[in-house]
Amino acid sequence: MKPLEWQNGKLRFLDQTRLPHEEVYVEADDPQDVADAIKRLSIRGAPLIGIAAAYGVALASRMSTVQSTKVLPALQKAMNLFSSSRPTAVNLFWALERQRRIIENVGDGSPDALFKSLLQEASKIHDEDREMCTKIGAWGADLLPNAAVVLTHCNTGNLATGGTGTAQSVISRSWEQRKLKHVYIDETRPLFQGARLTAWELQKLGIPSTLITDDTAAFLMQRGLINVVITGADRITLTGDVANKVGTYNLAVLAHYHSIPMYIAAPTSSIDFEMEEGSGIPIEQRSAMEVVEINGKRIAPLGIEVYSPAFDITPHHLVSAIITEQGVLRPPYRAALHALHRDTFILKPETA
Amino acid sequence: MKPLEWQNGKLRFLDQTRLPHEEVYVEADDPQDVADAIKRLSIRGAPLIGIAAAYGVALASRMSTVQSTKVLPALQKAMNLFSSSRPTAVNLFWALERQRRIIENVGDGSPDALFKSLLQEASKIHDEDREMCTKIGAWGADLLPNAAVVLTHCNTGNLATGGTGTAQSVISRSWEQRKLKHVYIDETRPLFQGARLTAWELQKLGIPSTLITDDTAAFLMQRGLINVVITGADRITLTGDVANKVGTYNLAVLAHYHSIPMYIAAPTSSIDFEMEEGSGIPIEQRSAMEVVEINGKRIAPLGIEVYSPAFDITPHHLVSAIITEQGVLRPPYRAALHALHRDTFILKPETA
Repeated sequence: MKPLEWQNGKLRFLDQTRLPHEEVYVEADDPQDVADAIKRLSIRGAPLIGIAAAYGVALASRMSTVQSTKVLPALQKAMNLFSSSRPTAVNLFWALERQRRIIENVGDGSPDALFKSLLQEASKIHDEDREMCTKIGAWGADLLPNAAVVLTHCNTGNLATGGTGTAQSVISRSWEQRKLKHVYIDETRPLFQGARLTAWELQKLGIPSTLITDDTAAFLMQRGLINVVITGADRITLTGDVANKVGTYNLAVLAHYHSIPMYIAAPTSSIDFEMEEGSGIPIEQRSAMEVVEINGKRIAPLGIEVYSPAFDITPHHLVSAIITEQGVLRPPYRAALHALHRDTFILKPETA
Repeated sequence: MKPLEWQNGKLRFLDQTRLPHEEVYVEADDPQDVADAIKRLSIRGAPLIGIAAAYGVALASRMSTVQSTKVLPALQKAMNLFSSSRPTAVNLFWALERQRRIIENVGDGSPDALFKSLLQEASKIHDEDREMCTKIGAWGADLLPNAAVVLTHCNTGNLATGGTGTAQSVISRSWEQRKLKHVYIDETRPLFQGARLTAWELQKLGIPSTLITDDTAAFLMQRGLINVVITGADRITLTGDVANKVGTYNLAVLAHYHSIPMYIAAPTSSIDFEMEEGSGIPIEQRSAMEVVEINGKRIAPLGIEVYSPAFDITPHHLVSAIITEQGVLRPPYRAALHALHRDTFILKPETA
């Protein structure tokens, strides 16, 4: 199952809003359709959003050729379109920056060569992410204790990345190594990415798992039933502060209180080398409808005010380790981030 | 709006499972129907369950007269029926114990006199609860700071009690006293008592409030937006441990971490004077269907395992104060509980 694939000159993707009940694939050759899919979470997960945006820029260059419009303005428009699709995950800006450099290097002399280079770069980002997932899984599985019982939040699997996932890659790799005993899955309100997506993926992988409401995590920790919490990240700052799906900070406080390690698994493309602290990360606000309606049926009374941030910020002092494809980072994170492979430093994500 | 009322010789109650969309009242003259309503949460909230069970026992005595069956075995059967309806809230056992004493005192010499006495006692329990709510509101409002922003969980209002509520009585009383600025309402998964019931009640009362997912509480506390957390209780032990809707312990840990007071508001009928510690409280397990289906629509994949405790236990050291109708109790709770009005000590709730 591939959540996103370049096929017959189009970007083919799984509409994740319809999971787990229907597996519907959509084909796009217009960057606007890709950006819309990102906005409505048909394509989601920080790494996958980056990959989709990279392909989206390639689509924009080809569409400009087909429509005989000037390619550079068309590409700038596409960059703006994707930049404004979702503000929190930095992988998106990282991928756009990589495409911007391709455009600078190749130029608009040959539109066809530019399209090919952009497509090649998107494909490279996709492949690299697949490899990063595998490496994150290996590093993370080493970190886990034997017979680990893991609590995870949101979806960080195949559906969220170009490969086996981030936090979920740690889970699946430790399962293969017979180190994993059980996974508890936070349902993850309001959009139920845990109940809809992670439950579905772990079921397919045959990994023993139990779905809980997000409120039940503390109950399980109190009874000593959780060994480790692992989540993904949408953006990591230089101090090691982590933006991730709302509820992650909640788990970090609970893990701290119960002396349970809190691990963040993310590729280095999730690191924002331009940002000092988590307080600088823009937090996307989601629609009230996602909270008050489920499957088109109203839960709350009409007219009630709703506050629904999509992400929260976990301060670095609550993060026990960050598992990247380059290894496991430990506090102090600033030093650990400096020791990463230099290439990652050259990339300058655009701050939204 | 009365969630429960003795009217024309029947127990008339609001079916709370259909709120906020429909206000449907049901009449019962069979104790079995009352017990079923408690089980499926048509009648809910620890104090209201106690009141309903007391009326239910009165109904059983009259039904026995109508059907010419022996009254004492019929009453014992009704006691067992209610005892086994929901295990965690102690008010239920407290109310049944009061009815048991009426039965002992009045005896089965005159079935009509027995019915009248049981009905009178149920009505007395109902009236007392109304008064307790008012007093809890007054004590609690004194405790709140000016311009308080309160976070609450589940429903503890008019719908959960014989009066203005427990935690919600504190909220409404401080609103009347112009001490309250805003209320954040946890939606309270899986049954959305916050989104469905508290949002609806606070809207009717004109109290400014915002609905959040349970995952958003930590985010708000981190930003300094919450002054105080107040919830109700289903059972309080001698050490001051508190059983309440799952997610309460979560909030208690978060409040502790953010140095926010965590208040429990409950009548003394919620105190189990027979139980030492929270670990002894039986925790009701709810059906997986409440987690994986909402309004009859499936969320999670078929076959996924679910763990859904209805309540959790907050240890006494995380409880800043317990607001009862007899005043505000502070740690150490054992001493504070001993200082309560003696009558409450005589009552011996049956442990399920």
